[in-house]
Order: sequence, then C-alpha cells, then structure tokens
Amino acid sequence: MLVSGTPYRTVWLQEESVRIIDQRRLPWSFDLLDLHTVADVAVAIRDMAVRGAGLIGATAAYGMWLAAREAATPDQLRSLADSLIITRPTAVNLSWAVNRQLTAIQAAGFENRVATARLTAETIADEDAAACAAIGGHGLEIIRAIASRKPGQVVHVLTHCNAGWLAFVDHGSATAPIYAAHAAGIPVHVWVDETRPRNQGARLTAWELAQQGVPHTVIADNTGGHLMQHGQVDLVITGADRVTRSGDVANKIGTYLKALAAQDNGVPFYVALPSSTFDWTLRDGVQGIPIEQRGAEEVTHLEGIAESGSVETLRIVSPGSPAANYAFDVTPARLVTGLITERGLCPTTETAICALHPQASGSIPSLS
Amino acid sequence: MLVSGTPYRTVWLQEESVRIIDQRRLPWSFDLLDLHTVADVAVAIRDMAVRGAGLIGATAAYGMWLAAREAATPDQLRSLADSLIITRPTAVNLSWAVNRQLTAIQAAGFENRVATARLTAETIADEDAAACAAIGGHGLEIIRAIASRKPGQVVHVLTHCNAGWLAFVDHGSATAPIYAAHAAGIPVHVWVDETRPRNQGARLTAWELAQQGVPHTVIADNTGGHLMQHGQVDLVITGADRVTRSGDVANKIGTYLKALAAQDNGVPFYVALPSSTFDWTLRDGVQGIPIEQRGAEEVTHLEGIAESGSVETLRIVSPGSPAANYAFDVTPARLVTGLITERGLCPTTETAICALHPQASGSIPSLS
Repeated sequence: MLVSGTPYRTVWLQEESVRIIDQRRLPWSFDLLDLHTVADVAVAIRDMAVRGAGLIGATAAYGMWLAAREAATPDQLRSLADSLIITRPTAVNLSWAVNRQLTAIQAAGFENRVATARLTAETIADEDAAACAAIGGHGLEIIRAIASRKPGQVVHVLTHCNAGWLAFVDHGSATAPIYAAHAAGIPVHVWVDETRPRNQGARLTAWELAQQGVPHTVIADNTGGHLMQHGQVDLVITGADRVTRSGDVANKIGTYLKALAAQDNGVPFYVALPSSTFDWTLRDGVQGIPIEQRGAEEVTHLEGIAESGSVETLRIVSPGSPAANYAFDVTPARLVTGLITERGLCPTTETAICALHPQASGSIPSLS
Repeated sequence: MLVSGTPYRTVWLQEESVRIIDQRRLPWSFDLLDLHTVADVAVAIRDMAVRGAGLIGATAAYGMWLAAREAATPDQLRSLADSLIITRPTAVNLSWAVNRQLTAIQAAGFENRVATARLTAETIADEDAAACAAIGGHGLEIIRAIASRKPGQVVHVLTHCNAGWLAFVDHGSATAPIYAAHAAGIPVHVWVDETRPRNQGARLTAWELAQQGVPHTVIADNTGGHLMQHGQVDLVITGADRVTRSGDVANKIGTYLKALAAQDNGVPFYVALPSSTFDWTLRDGVQGIPIEQRGAEEVTHLEGIAESGSVETLRIVSPGSPAANYAFDVTPARLVTGLITERGLCPTTETAICALHPQASGSIPSLS
C-alpha cells in the first residue's frame, strides 16, 4: 500500500538481510530496519517492531532464511526455529510459517536449505498478500450490499486494533474490503478503535487509512456500543490472531466486547483472515487458546509526541498502583456473523469452515 | 475519606468561598482550589475540576449560595442558576440541586436567600454523604453474600470510571460497598477500568483506593470481558450519571459494554446511586438521555507525568487523524442486575424503583 504515495510491502528481502518497517516508531516517523540474524528477527517480533498475525508469520518465514544460513546442522536449524516460535504465544501464523519452512527444507534436503528457505519465504509473503487481496474482493461484496440498501449514504465500518496492511505483507485483512470499497467508489467511513493499551488503532490504523485517503475517526474503545445503539455502525470488521476450526476468534483484547455490542444491536460482525490463521487442532477457543500477558508498563505508560515534535513516554496511571495487561481475548463463534477468508465467506460453524478449507481434515483436535 | 491519612470531603465551605479538591491535578498532585464566584463554580464544573454526579450536584448547590449573594433580584438568581445548569448536560444531579435551591429560596422568601441557600447547600452535601454511606451498607450485604460462597478467597469487583468518594461528597456510590467490605475485613480486590478517554479510573479510582489501602489492579477498558470469561470477576459495580424511572442507566462511555459482558458470563452487574440521580421524567434512556460530546483533544491527547516529575501532555493519535468523544452511554435496564440506592436494593423495573422511591409519583414522563 501507499506511504507518501509510494507503494510498499511491510517486509522484504534487501540484499543479505530482511528489511522491515519499524512499526514501533509509527506514526511519529517512518523508518526502515534491517534484520541481519535470526536473533534480530526474534527481537523484532518480540518487541513488536513487526506485529499482526500475517506479518509475524511472514517475518518469521524470512527469519528462517537467515536461520538456514546460520545453521550448520538440522539440530541447529530446529533450535533457531524454536527461538522464533517462542517470541509470541497467541498468533498461530508464527508457528505455521516456521513449521512450513522446516517441512520444505526437510523435503528438499538440508544441503538445499538456503535456496529452499528463500523461495518458501517469498512464497509465504506472496501468498499472504494474495490472500489479503482476495479477502478484499470477498469483503467488498458485503460492503457493496450494504451500500445498495442506503444509496448515496456513507457506509460506516468499525474496526478494532490494526488488521491493516501493516499487520500483513500487503492490503491487510480487516482493511482489505475497506480499501477495495474505497477504490470502487463506495463512500466508506471507518470508526477506528484506538485499541488500548498499545493504541494500534490510533497509531497504525489511523495512519494507514490516512495514507490511502480513507475517511476515518478515532474513538476510545469504550465508544462502539453507543455508536451501534444509535445506528452509526453498519458493520464491524476485525482481524484475528488465531481462529479455531469451530470459529472461535482470538483477537486483540476488547474484540469480544464489540462483538457483544454488535449482536445486541443487530450489527453484522465479520472477522477477516487468511486461512493460515486457523488453528485446526482446536475447537474451544476460550479454553484452548493461550492468551499472552505482556508487561504492565504498556498499561501504566504511554508514548506520544510532544508539541516540540519529540517522542516521549509518560506515566498515565496513578503512581504506585499496579496494572495487568492481557493482550488478546476470545470471541465465541456464536457472536461472529461470518468469516471472510481468501476462499470466500463462511458462517462460523465447523462444518462450513472445514468444507471451505480442505486442509482442516488433516488435523484432529486433541479435545473434542 | 482519607488523603495521606487525613479525612476530607470533596467540597466544603471555607470562609467566604467554596473549597474543592482540584481533580484535574490528581493523582499527580493534591491541590485545593477556592471558588469565589458563580462563574468560578461554572468553570470548575465545565472544566472538570469537580466531576461525578453527586459532586457536580453538591458543588452546584454551594454555587447557588454564591449566586444568592451575587443576585440582587430573583431574575438575576434565575439567570445565575441557568449558568450552572448548562455546564454539563448528562448528569441530572446538577439541575436537581440547582432547582432544589430555587425552590427553597422561593419558599423562604428572596430576602432570606443567602442563609437559605447556605443551609440548603450544607443539607444537600450532608445528604449526599449520608446516602453514599447507606449505599455502602446495602452493597456490603451483596459482597458479604458472595464472600460467604467462597470462604477464604478474595472477592473481585470490577468498576468503571470513578464513582468513588471523589465523585460525591464522601464515600462514593460504586466504591462505598467496597470500602464497607474492606472495613469489615472481607478480602476485596478491585479491577479498575482505566476509563478512556479521561482515565478517571487510572487516575482517580486507583488513587483513592490506594489512599484507603484497598488492593486493586488497573486494566485497559478492553479487558473486562476476558476476565469475566475466565471467572476472575465476581461482580461489577458502577455509578450512574442519570437513571430513568424504568432503570436505564446513563454512565461513563463503555459501561454498556461491561454490562453486556457481565450478562454473557452470568456476572452480577450492579449500579449504585443516590436517589438524586434518578430522572423521574424519563423511561427510555437510550432515546431520552442527552449524551454529552466533548472535545476531540481529550481523545487525541493525554496527560501524564514524566520521569522528571513534570506533568505533560502528548498527542497519542496519528497526527492529522480526527477523533470523536462521546462521554456517556446508556445501559438498558435489562442488563442491570439491580440498583443500590440509599433506600436499599431494587431490581430495574419501574414498579420496583417507584415503590422504593415515593418521590417518583410526582413526575409524569413526557413520553410513555
């Protein structure tokens, strides 16, 4: 997508290293960062220089190309792979991408590991971008149908966190239908949840929508229910960090609350995801998906930009009071109107999801 | 309640002026502010040096004592009263207190206005403190019942915004049962919603709980649903800015989302309020209660304390992106387990509410 009018991806090969957009510095400044080692990649994922389900997966895939160059033995390669997998616990794309690399390298033979890993990483990145483009096409039809019922009026979409192109290789998941609608000339406006505690909505989603010229308004996370009560939200689209085979959705903390409000007000609630985000081994997301707890300082302190232009961090919680920081929650399938994947729309039932995704049959949930 | 071990109210007469705690500066510093004129009081309410349903009412009542001294004619008094009423649109205690003063002055005769207004202001403040203490007693029984079902274990209460003693003259509404339980030796822990955009939870509720020694943890507003899904919330208690005769609750934006999550997880959701917070003229809160919209800068910018100790404000939203700021939402009565008023507990039905509050019969809703 565009940054100051120039098209970018979020991660790519740059000579002997992996180049990323350092998202910790957005929107205050647009900086690129080169990752030279597997350790660099692990730090970038853990410290959230890159974040978002798809981008974590793609960056880890590129990280495995660096791993293939660093490893002298299969055991070393496995160890480097493990060092990537443990960086973030909730997003399933991470282990999915690393394991796909290991499988590909095993199939091609260890001696061909570098070329295989490079090709696989580029394939994963291209597939991610293509999946998001396809999600955009399928989601466009939902927005087009709503627009046709209110001709001449703006379609209001609410989204939570950043499931934009910054969370993938390109296009985004939740934003792809919005960008497609905007490009198709449908008047869309996006309510952007600021998404505490890390404010990915206020920082990243607002920034990328502005870069593409899409009208939007940032709101406190508390606001969506009120807007829905008063008919100011036509649909909700969020992304996902992990979705079970029965349609339970792990996504940024607070997603569940918006899904409840959508249900209470008859507002359609869609989750957009590439099929790499499914965890075919799980049915019950509330019990089965591990929820990452991050440092309390992400709640107690907040970064922003001073009038002088300098980036600073302030304590915003009463000094001495403790804080807790759960990064994700799980929205039960019953609250989700439908999933938008690169293969099309489907309701959140195991039958429908697995019918659309033949790869599901290869996995058997450990618990029924 | 205690500040550094010394008991305080939030507003009181100090010689010829009205003294308040300047809550805009909490928790970074504890400063008192003297209001000498009605205009001073109006600014203090509008700029939220005082805030919270009960405290707005009590401060306006004291403001009417200043008005009685400033006004040479009944028309002037009415005009000064109006200047107070328009400062905040949602909290009904404001117009309730001002109108009670006007009625008392009319009954006593304009020539007795200063003494009457002073007495009425002190009465309103004392009644507010007494009502909150009674709310504490009634709410204590709810907490005691929960504690008896999990002996030896901590009772976890979630609250939103600040309905603490800082929002009233003393004790608070939502916090009164918590303080009563803490004093009774019941182990309580409070999940404190930070309450964006003004962060009254992270700033005020966390501060006042710490001052009374009550264990608590600050969380992002997005977190409550996840905690409820995992059995970590035994009950929710919030305050209210206006409650209709049928039990619809206007309270800080985001309250509705927590009520939905409580219902979805079978967690009791109580609203604590003195009866001055009822609006007997309304039934349908979602349609009837005006929702204040405040400046976008409360969303785009945030105040905190730097490591140096200086209080600073940063922009936290992507530069150039607009924001909207709805200050309250309405929780339908069907989501509220019960109301805790100074007269006792009651379910959210018009019959039960009006049976407990005979003053309801004097008002006829303009719309059925």
